Amino acid sequence: MSNFGFTHLRLVNPYNVAFREAKSAVHAGAILEQAVEYSTLAEAVADCTLVVGTTAAERRELHHPLRRLEYGGKLIRKALPAGRVALLFGSEKFGLGNDDLAYCHWLLRIPTREKHVSMNLGQAVAVCLYELIRASVPPKPELRKPPTSEEIERLTTLLREILDLSGYVHAESTETKIRRLIRRLDLSARDAEIWLGVFRQILWKVKPS
Amino acid sequence: MSNFGFTHLRLVNPYNVAFREAKSAVHAGAILEQAVEYSTLAEAVADCTLVVGTTAAERRELHHPLRRLEYGGKLIRKALPAGRVALLFGSEKFGLGNDDLAYCHWLLRIPTREKHVSMNLGQAVAVCLYELIRASVPPKPELRKPPTSEEIERLTTLLREILDLSGYVHAESTETKIRRLIRRLDLSARDAEIWLGVFRQILWKVKPS
Repeated sequence: MSNFGFTHLRLVNPYNVAFREAKSAVHAGAILEQAVEYSTLAEAVADCTLVVGTTAAERRELHHPLRRLEYGGKLIRKALPAGRVALLFGSEKFGLGNDDLAYCHWLLRIPTREKHVSMNLGQAVAVCLYELIRASVPPKPELRKPPTSEEIERLTTLLREILDLSGYVHAESTETKIRRLIRRLDLSARDAEIWLGVFRQILWKVKPS
Repeated sequence: MSNFGFTHLRLVNPYNVAFREAKSAVHAGAILEQAVEYSTLAEAVADCTLVVGTTAAERRELHHPLRRLEYGGKLIRKALPAGRVALLFGSEKFGLGNDDLAYCHWLLRIPTREKHVSMNLGQAVAVCLYELIRASVPPKPELRKPPTSEEIERLTTLLREILDLSGYVHAESTETKIRRLIRRLDLSARDAEIWLGVFRQILWKVKPS
C-alpha cells in the first residue's frame, strides 16, 4: 500500500493478536498506525460510493459482474473523482464470503492462470494497487536480434585479456567495468559476432608468441 | 510465478538452509522442485539473450538505461520470441550489487512513490510478472444481458402503481422520477425479471381487494 501511495487501510473484525502485533512492530509505518478497525463490513464501507470485491472466482455462482483487473482498474480510476472507492480483500484462507460480496457493486479478478488462481494476499494487493497507479500509455520500443549473455561474456573475456596484455591499468574493479562497458554497447547479435572477430584478431596480435 | 504461468526459477548461490527447507515443504510445488541452482550469475544467464535487472533505483550512479515497468514489460514481451529473457531479482535486503548489474542489459523499476521505493521481494516479483502477462488492450466489458425498455417500463409502471396505492406523495413529475430511478439500477435482464415478480407481489398486497 505504501509503495503505491494508498493510505487508508480499514480492517473488519481483524484477528486481534496478529493485528496488534503488526501495529506495534518497529517498522509498522503510518498506514498500519492509522488503520481503522470496524466490527462490520457495512460500517467499514458506509462512506464509499463504489465497493469492489476481489475474488479468485473459483466458485461458479457469482451474482455480480466479474471484471478482469485491467478493465476493472480502469473503471475504478473513473469512479474515483465521484467518491471513495473500497477495494475489498478477504482473508488469505477463505477469501470473501457471500455475505461480504453482497456489499459489492462488482467483483475484480486478477488474470492468473486457471490452474493456479489462488494468490498470496500481500501479492494480490500489490498487483491490484499497481494496476491502479500504472501509467496507461507506455512509450515506444525498438527492435533488433540481441546476442546471448554467453557471447557478451566471450567479448568481455577477450577484451580483458587484451587489456591485461596491453598493460591497461589494472584494478580490482576492472572486470566489472569492462563487463558494463560491453553491455552498454547494446550490440546486435550480428555486431557481437563481428566484434568477436575483431577482438580475437587483436588478442592474437598482443599475445606474446 | 505459478499464478502467472512462469516456470523457470534459477537461483544463484542461494542461502541453502532456507532453500532446502522451502524445497522440501509440503506445498512447494513444481517450480521450486525444478528450480536450478547456479554458483555464479554468469552461468545462470548464459543462455539468455536479454538480462533485465530489477532495482529500486535508490543509488544514483546507474550505468544502465533504467526503464519503468510499463515500458520495460513491453520490451521484454517483444524480446521473448528472439530468445530467453532473464528477469533478475536481488536479495530482499540488499538488492542487486554492481557486479550483478554488470550482467544486465538494462534495468527495470516498479513505479513506486519516491518516498517508499523498496518493495517486499515476493510482491515485486508478482507485480513484474503481472505486467508481463497483462492484456495490453483491456478486454471488452463482460456481456451481461440487459433488460429491454419494455421490461424496464413494466417495472416503472408497477412501482408507480404501488407508490400511488401506498399514498406516496404524488406530483406531476413522479412518473419521470420513477423511470429514471429504475434505469439507474442498471439491472440485468435476469434481475429485472426477479424485480418484476417482487413488484407484482407487492402490488397484489397493496391493491384494495
